[in-house]
Amino acid sequence: MTKDSATASQDLQPQIRISFKKSIAMGPGKADLLDAIATTGSISAAAREMGMSYRRAWLLVETMNQSFQEPLVMTAAGGQHGGGAVVTALGCEVVRRFRAMERKAAASVKAEMEAFTQLLQD
Amino acid sequence: MTKDSATASQDLQPQIRISFKKSIAMGPGKADLLDAIATTGSISAAAREMGMSYRRAWLLVETMNQSFQEPLVMTAAGGQHGGGAVVTALGCEVVRRFRAMERKAAASVKAEMEAFTQLLQD
Repeated sequence: MTKDSATASQDLQPQIRISFKKSIAMGPGKADLLDAIATTGSISAAAREMGMSYRRAWLLVETMNQSFQEPLVMTAAGGQHGGGAVVTALGCEVVRRFRAMERKAAASVKAEMEAFTQLLQD
Repeated sequence: MTKDSATASQDLQPQIRISFKKSIAMGPGKADLLDAIATTGSISAAAREMGMSYRRAWLLVETMNQSFQEPLVMTAAGGQHGGGAVVTALGCEVVRRFRAMERKAAASVKAEMEAFTQLLQD
């Protein structure tokens, strides 16, 4: 309900990371970035919203696009930081499936997580 | 069966991280460190085995010990890098429960993970 409790419950979720070769093809940060690109329509606006550099966001997009069978993000021609970006149908599906796995993994260990946190200091 | 497939399947496991205040009280690396301390009987030997500095291993132990209601690792007096270390009963229980959560979360999304990886490049 408060920001703190929302943050805390998120921290207690299992995190999913999909490795591909030596990179992380998909993980919590990349899924958030895809959501932000879908919302803002641009890599630079998404980067700003997430408090990361344009360069870092661009590199994350590049990793995703090289890891999957088709690109997850397409950018319009139009110069640096310029032409806007869209999340492809595959990108949308990847996010949807990733979120579903997060939820399912979290639900599977909800009771154990709650019991575990009783071992932490007050 | 091969090292590669073991690594790949490990990379595809959901990762559990238990946050406490601003730190990670328990996560995959800390659980591995506890296992290594239990096996080697020393923080410095465990650090070597894991390819991390003694200082880093010590800081991870300190974070764990400060996060839980009782210490997870006790060190014998006896000077720097000196007197050996043991994982406490609580430390053993924390690792056991942590591994159980990892396994349960992994099992819960096994089919989804396998389907998801079909979207990756060959």
